[in-house]
Amino acid sequence: MRMYDLIMKKRNGEALTAEEIHYMIDGYTKGEIPDYQMSAFTMAVYFRGMNEEETYHLTMEMANSGELLDLSDIPGIKVDKHSTGGVGDKTSLAVMPLLASFGLKSAKMSGRGLGHTGGTVDKLESFTGFHTEISMDQFMDQVKNVGISIIGQTKDLAPADKKLYALRDVTATVENISLIASSIMSKKLAAGASVILLDVKTGSGAFMKTKEDSESLAREMVKIGKNAGRTMIAVISDMNQPLGNAVGNALEVKEAIATLNGEGPADFTKLVYEIVSEFLIKTGIADTKENAFSMIDEKIRNKEGLEKLAQFVKAQGGNAEEVYHPELLPKAEYVMEIRTEKEGYISRIQCEEIGICSMMLGGGREKKEDLIDPAVGIVLTKKVGNYVKNGDVLALMHYNSAEHIPPLNAVKRFLNAYEFSNEKPDELPLIHGIID
Amino acid sequence: MRMYDLIMKKRNGEALTAEEIHYMIDGYTKGEIPDYQMSAFTMAVYFRGMNEEETYHLTMEMANSGELLDLSDIPGIKVDKHSTGGVGDKTSLAVMPLLASFGLKSAKMSGRGLGHTGGTVDKLESFTGFHTEISMDQFMDQVKNVGISIIGQTKDLAPADKKLYALRDVTATVENISLIASSIMSKKLAAGASVILLDVKTGSGAFMKTKEDSESLAREMVKIGKNAGRTMIAVISDMNQPLGNAVGNALEVKEAIATLNGEGPADFTKLVYEIVSEFLIKTGIADTKENAFSMIDEKIRNKEGLEKLAQFVKAQGGNAEEVYHPELLPKAEYVMEIRTEKEGYISRIQCEEIGICSMMLGGGREKKEDLIDPAVGIVLTKKVGNYVKNGDVLALMHYNSAEHIPPLNAVKRFLNAYEFSNEKPDELPLIHGIID
Repeated sequence: MRMYDLIMKKRNGEALTAEEIHYMIDGYTKGEIPDYQMSAFTMAVYFRGMNEEETYHLTMEMANSGELLDLSDIPGIKVDKHSTGGVGDKTSLAVMPLLASFGLKSAKMSGRGLGHTGGTVDKLESFTGFHTEISMDQFMDQVKNVGISIIGQTKDLAPADKKLYALRDVTATVENISLIASSIMSKKLAAGASVILLDVKTGSGAFMKTKEDSESLAREMVKIGKNAGRTMIAVISDMNQPLGNAVGNALEVKEAIATLNGEGPADFTKLVYEIVSEFLIKTGIADTKENAFSMIDEKIRNKEGLEKLAQFVKAQGGNAEEVYHPELLPKAEYVMEIRTEKEGYISRIQCEEIGICSMMLGGGREKKEDLIDPAVGIVLTKKVGNYVKNGDVLALMHYNSAEHIPPLNAVKRFLNAYEFSNEKPDELPLIHGIID
Repeated sequence: MRMYDLIMKKRNGEALTAEEIHYMIDGYTKGEIPDYQMSAFTMAVYFRGMNEEETYHLTMEMANSGELLDLSDIPGIKVDKHSTGGVGDKTSLAVMPLLASFGLKSAKMSGRGLGHTGGTVDKLESFTGFHTEISMDQFMDQVKNVGISIIGQTKDLAPADKKLYALRDVTATVENISLIASSIMSKKLAAGASVILLDVKTGSGAFMKTKEDSESLAREMVKIGKNAGRTMIAVISDMNQPLGNAVGNALEVKEAIATLNGEGPADFTKLVYEIVSEFLIKTGIADTKENAFSMIDEKIRNKEGLEKLAQFVKAQGGNAEEVYHPELLPKAEYVMEIRTEKEGYISRIQCEEIGICSMMLGGGREKKEDLIDPAVGIVLTKKVGNYVKNGDVLALMHYNSAEHIPPLNAVKRFLNAYEFSNEKPDELPLIHGIID
């Protein structure tokens, strides 16, 4: 077999066999197939696509290219909730504790965030002492006993995907649904959960800008997971404006805590309920959506979700007191009200821009080695559909600064992210669809 | 400027500017742009193509990436005849001497042949002592005084093309008309001739299998050359069967000599006349095709073409006696008649297979370092349209062998290359068109 022939085959629109995909991914991982052949191949895939079988085989080869996380010793159903990434997306922080309160197990292996969307680990590190440098034994024990554990990427999960993604990233071959789907799913499959829920974000602030693209991606991933014998759910959720109100690490943690206390923002609370209820139905814990919702209501009323979060934080070295007293979490020195000079209905909030503002305040990383400030960020007070007048407060900017004033370019960028119209815009649906 | 953006641009179907193409080729030649980005780019070109302007700029950038051959000190019109490669294609051996007899100057820089089509240098080295390791001074003097000179690739002509072609060759991105055209033309433009005739082969034995593709390639190359201020002619000539009868180095030289004596095979003689007459008309030496043909007739009658070949061979260290007495040229120890067991009209001769047979006899190189045997090869006695009966001789196989018998797999392959039918096939046109 020669890589040349496989490139040619794909270039000519033919499908590769399982053996051919094995040869390719195995050879590429071992460095026997050079980058320049692989990038020509991925560009051919950009134009010719891959069919369901090819995508499945590619995913499996990448999943099997490294270690596999073996969760079989842990009793109970192992679940995994994955988001394709959005601004203000602290969903896991509320979802995992609720799932744990129902006995579902989340074993998460996670890296740090980069760019305008923050990572779950970064958010959790707002808790004093919280860390993910735990042993594999502790990780497993904690999943068993607490129901949630999160560990830094210690195992070499799907190294083929890592290598291939880095190549696609510099050769303009990221934007292909099959390649994106297999990249995400290879890591999910290697991570060992049996029930996987994908929160596929859609809209201006998401990787997938249109509903159609988001649905295609969701469908591809669900197909791959099912072919691999996993129970799959994909929720297409809106990312045309930040999720909830808080953007910034400790601020988002506080919002997640508020939600577990039944006091979260309506949109975020709704998404948490949707996701948890899908898990409950798929795992047979609830039979209908309605029942699932009242079961979640109960876990919020009796604070079982909150308690699980506290146990989880404590188990990983964090100060659990901060869960019950979120005012103890890191606070920025300054809070500035950001007021608009415009009048009208807010028609759009450019999500990515809000994420970048938070990053500019120090809440996110531009480069891997950047340190982040957990306290800073933005809390929106007005969202799409609200009517505002000149002088109304759009948001509170939390910042630290030696000069006492916030970075003016961040303020400017924030204000420019809002768009207004004279007519009330259509309400943005939060959930665009569920695919399973 | 970033290569990433240029890949993206081409991937999305946009045209690159002259500046962008300069940045890309310059950076790639210097090694600043890596192979893996370049191969993703060429694959995007495979799918999106390049417009006339882009192709021109790419060609010029590659031509200017290395040294340019400066022929301006040589008086007279400098011409260049280039073939896209075929089996039995000894055209230059007859054309260049005839052109020289009219005062036209051929300054050829040439590498060795590889695969099933032989190189002109390999053919010329059949003359005892002939070599291309001459100084640049001798090269120039000889063009001036004899009118023909051929030198090994001493100057670094179009290194960007060399690097890019090697990459395309292993990434299945050779087959794009614009890339092929710019590759050929970058070397032609760097080689300095003002009148360039391209013999674009078409048919089963050619790189371009269909008339349409051959015409597209010819048109692209003619456009590039004209944009660069050169006088251009493209002849689309047939390669559905070997050209002439001889395939193999010394055998082809003998056929070229026979043709300069007015005793060559009809098809080969016709192609030589067509090509020389196009040069004569384009350079104003002849006004009509008819006149050009009789002028060539005269050069053959008075042996001026033959004499030029002898002068050329002598100037490069070869034994000119062999031009006048071709029986002195290397001869194989054995000649075997190859007889058919079939009956019918020959409907097709798979060209490439005949070339490969000759290579198997030792007449061509599979790898760069292979030595070749100038004496061996095949002389066809029957061609497409001939009627044959069981036992008729199709060809004479010239071979050297310690075991006295020819390689049986070569004989088998030769016989399998012939196809027969009960009906007389349509005559194959030799010239499919001329584009200028």
